[in-house]
Amino acid sequence: MATSKPVTAILLMSCPDRKGLVATVAQFLHERGANITHADHHVDPEAGIFFMRVEWEVEGFSLSTEETRQEFGRLVESFEMKWSLHYSNQVQRVALFSSKDDHCLLDLLWRYRAGELPHAQMPILISNHLDHSHIAKEYGMDFRHFPMTPETKASQEKKEIEVLKDYEIDLIVLARYMQIVTGQFVNAFPRQIINIHHSFLPAFIGANPYRKAYERGVKLVGATSHYVTEDLDEGPIIAQDVTPVSHRDTLEDLIRKGRDLEKQVLARAVRSHLTHNVLSYANKTVVFG
Amino acid sequence: MATSKPVTAILLMSCPDRKGLVATVAQFLHERGANITHADHHVDPEAGIFFMRVEWEVEGFSLSTEETRQEFGRLVESFEMKWSLHYSNQVQRVALFSSKDDHCLLDLLWRYRAGELPHAQMPILISNHLDHSHIAKEYGMDFRHFPMTPETKASQEKKEIEVLKDYEIDLIVLARYMQIVTGQFVNAFPRQIINIHHSFLPAFIGANPYRKAYERGVKLVGATSHYVTEDLDEGPIIAQDVTPVSHRDTLEDLIRKGRDLEKQVLARAVRSHLTHNVLSYANKTVVFG
Amino acid sequence: MATSKPVTAILLMSCPDRKGLVATVAQFLHERGANITHADHHVDPEAGIFFMRVEWEVEGFSLSTEETRQEFGRLVESFEMKWSLHYSNQVQRVALFSSKDDHCLLDLLWRYRAGELPHAQMPILISNHLDHSHIAKEYGMDFRHFPMTPETKASQEKKEIEVLKDYEIDLIVLARYMQIVTGQFVNAFPRQIINIHHSFLPAFIGANPYRKAYERGVKLVGATSHYVTEDLDEGPIIAQDVTPVSHRDTLEDLIRKGRDLEKQVLARAVRSHLTHNVLSYANKTVVFG
Amino acid sequence: MATSKPVTAILLMSCPDRKGLVATVAQFLHERGANITHADHHVDPEAGIFFMRVEWEVEGFSLSTEETRQEFGRLVESFEMKWSLHYSNQVQRVALFSSKDDHCLLDLLWRYRAGELPHAQMPILISNHLDHSHIAKEYGMDFRHFPMTPETKASQEKKEIEVLKDYEIDLIVLARYMQIVTGQFVNAFPRQIINIHHSFLPAFIGANPYRKAYERGVKLVGATSHYVTEDLDEGPIIAQDVTPVSHRDTLEDLIRKGRDLEKQVLARAVRSHLTHNVLSYANKTVVFG
Repeated sequence: MATSKPVTAILLMSCPDRKGLVATVAQFLHERGANITHADHHVDPEAGIFFMRVEWEVEGFSLSTEETRQEFGRLVESFEMKWSLHYSNQVQRVALFSSKDDHCLLDLLWRYRAGELPHAQMPILISNHLDHSHIAKEYGMDFRHFPMTPETKASQEKKEIEVLKDYEIDLIVLARYMQIVTGQFVNAFPRQIINIHHSFLPAFIGANPYRKAYERGVKLVGATSHYVTEDLDEGPIIAQDVTPVSHRDTLEDLIRKGRDLEKQVLARAVRSHLTHNVLSYANKTVVFG
Repeated sequence: MATSKPVTAILLMSCPDRKGLVATVAQFLHERGANITHADHHVDPEAGIFFMRVEWEVEGFSLSTEETRQEFGRLVESFEMKWSLHYSNQVQRVALFSSKDDHCLLDLLWRYRAGELPHAQMPILISNHLDHSHIAKEYGMDFRHFPMTPETKASQEKKEIEVLKDYEIDLIVLARYMQIVTGQFVNAFPRQIINIHHSFLPAFIGANPYRKAYERGVKLVGATSHYVTEDLDEGPIIAQDVTPVSHRDTLEDLIRKGRDLEKQVLARAVRSHLTHNVLSYANKTVVFG
Repeated sequence: MATSKPVTAILLMSCPDRKGLVATVAQFLHERGANITHADHHVDPEAGIFFMRVEWEVEGFSLSTEETRQEFGRLVESFEMKWSLHYSNQVQRVALFSSKDDHCLLDLLWRYRAGELPHAQMPILISNHLDHSHIAKEYGMDFRHFPMTPETKASQEKKEIEVLKDYEIDLIVLARYMQIVTGQFVNAFPRQIINIHHSFLPAFIGANPYRKAYERGVKLVGATSHYVTEDLDEGPIIAQDVTPVSHRDTLEDLIRKGRDLEKQVLARAVRSHLTHNVLSYANKTVVFG
Repeated sequence: MATSKPVTAILLMSCPDRKGLVATVAQFLHERGANITHADHHVDPEAGIFFMRVEWEVEGFSLSTEETRQEFGRLVESFEMKWSLHYSNQVQRVALFSSKDDHCLLDLLWRYRAGELPHAQMPILISNHLDHSHIAKEYGMDFRHFPMTPETKASQEKKEIEVLKDYEIDLIVLARYMQIVTGQFVNAFPRQIINIHHSFLPAFIGANPYRKAYERGVKLVGATSHYVTEDLDEGPIIAQDVTPVSHRDTLEDLIRKGRDLEKQVLARAVRSHLTHNVLSYANKTVVFG
């Protein structure tokens, strides 16, 4: 699907707001022959931060990747800018984590096969259980089993980090992985871990959100996808959605209806990330597209 | 609008679940000539409680109101049933409370005029400010001003209760009334006070929910209408809804988008209550219709 | 999941409205020891038709299936009632039809495996293409290939009907089956064929609805699940939903976003049918639950 | 509310796509001291059309309005560009049209008072009935009554056009105005007339859409706001939304639920237009923001 599209380069930028940023970036690219296909920007007026995403066709652009890095780096030297350069045909290696529920896992794998996650590769599935090894096999993924106890978590995570580094993983997706990851793990992959929480955060943080929602008698259940930080369920939110429920819905019904939400919300967040449409700052995200 | 519809009687019931409840009620009514137009029931399987709402045409029914009360009371004597009898042409007197925001207030009044709240009367508007006295005047309502300070709240509420009793109020709607009501007030009108909270409860309980939502970076804002209990924002939820927001939305935008939600969610809850479609138990509601 | 629930019987009824129907049915069941767990009814006031669905526990009920049929038949003899009796543990044999798109097919199969479609059996997949034979294999279904040309359609459909009768199929689900079925096929399975149309019907009837939606510049795309009748895309609607789109969405994006809708809308309709919650009349449905 | 915000200038542009458009515009503004606060652009890849909206602070910009027009005109002389220049503090004069339903009318007027439609003025209400004259009076608007018959429509519209020109009207909002306007009227105000149609277009074009929706048995009802063109209900769609309905909803319920939708969808479209976020082409719109 995506293969026939022209290859594009994508610049993600954020810096303290100042005059002329859009023009400076646009002019820089234009002078080097870029055909800009998308340009989005945003200013957080309270925080005074400027965000920009610009995408242009590689064909006709006069700089190599290395030259782009060097020249753009010089251009923004004084701007205190965080920036990253990506290419639409660049492979992104995604590691999936799961436990016993397979709906998010299978949904992502279906989307991957259907071409909805362009240029992703999914080489490895990691789990604290053995249940999903056959899924890994079916999709040609390596399967690694890391059982967890409170005592072994620290050492097991260290091994996981090694494996993930070996596999040159760009993004970790916790597809209903029912273990809390520790600071050491999070810090090894900053803003590279996406989780799906089965509630409308910040409502029902922590364990058993559907049970809590059922007991509170809410009329909607939700799902939230966010970057994982050291604070449980407190990371920057990328996507959220809800679905109506009523007194007729049992706890089982909430779980069933929630599954549909979880799949979609996680997929939306993963797709936004993989298409380089998410910028995060403080505890928030800018999601373009 | 509603005037051409046949007059109906409505029974609301809840009791510990047991065999034969639907049949017993249906048979009781049928034997007395009732043409049942709506019958809804629900069993909470965890709590083991049975809920029923049955509506029938008064024409052709052989019992008077008083006889219905007596005979039905005898029928369910041993069932530990809470029940109430209502009529579709029975006036329900609603007191509105507001502070400075007028969107929920005007919305309810428009719906009232348009016939969306059949058989409601809205004789009085109470406020801790003077801003809305002209609205009361325009709609032919009495306006009562009860300014509040921490010191005067208890005594002011006592006066409010007296006024509300004098006006024979059946339902109190807090249409963005920005004062916490105390236990004495709540206990004077059990399950007769409906509030609108401007968040998706239980997220962002208390003051400034839009500010909190903005700071948390949520991707949806919500509104919740609930019965008021002694615990702030913890009462049984009647209706909830959300609307999407993005990084582009300022705090002002959240407030603007939220207003639309608040109006609709509150109106839905009030309409459900006034059409006798809400049964509450523990901290939950059954909302038929 | 559903296995631990008590076995229930379900009666679906529709007839010209008259007094006492709810009471008559409830009393009939109660006198025979039924513990009614769900009872829904509806009257279409314009058409004057009464609809009822009642569900009760088999344990404690004094009649056998055969006796129920006979005694209930006698009870409603003069009511011009259409009725059917079902049991929650009764297997329902579902045939799936697909062409080249696999998202609805795989989604239904996942739900089937996950226990969301209780007591369904999915013994056979029929397709006008060979692409999905491996899916049938993976799920242990028989696969039958019926290629279609305008010339062969009538004879191929006859063979399909035979196969479906041999397999004792109760419900046919067209899971993105891209062939118009003829009157002979529809008439062989009245109200037993459910289709998913990839638009918000009645908008964009017929071929290429996403292309039409794209060209019309709509701001929402939809999906509709309906019973198949002889008139293309005109059968009684069981479920519908929409999702927002914008000028940024290409035709490809509409198709991608639509797929998520199609899966959910079709699954909701199939689940409603299999749990005996759908009654159809004229060109409409009553969907309880 | 909007008053404390800095005054901004807004350029809306559309032209055949070519390289360097974003950079050319951004550079032009930057060189003249502009602080760009918003910049959105879009390319319709099928039509090959480029769209851009750019907003910058007037303070610090070195050109007057007249100079901006001249210099920008020269810049894009060879681009076949349609463009328009607006200012955030520029008053926009809105004429409201209504018939007998007042919900959209009152909703717009409430939003206007609440500051949701910044810099709009609403000097005149035109109606083919007399029912809303008191509303005009209450809001300090002139009221003009133009009764319509098939015979008088042409001449009445001519008078309306004169009045609207006298009032220097920028935008006409048909707030449930139940008359079809003719080509002469449409052509006098190209892309300056916004209508609300009470269905999810293109479903249920023309009269009585709720009745048609009711008879078709849809599970959602919708509303669509669009620019008025000579073809009834066929103009470019600006905003759409839907709300769920069920078999329980009577035609009256559909109308009631639809009213809430109509208000919101119309208000969203009017706000997008008044904030210069809508560009239309062929039969579509680009809606930024």
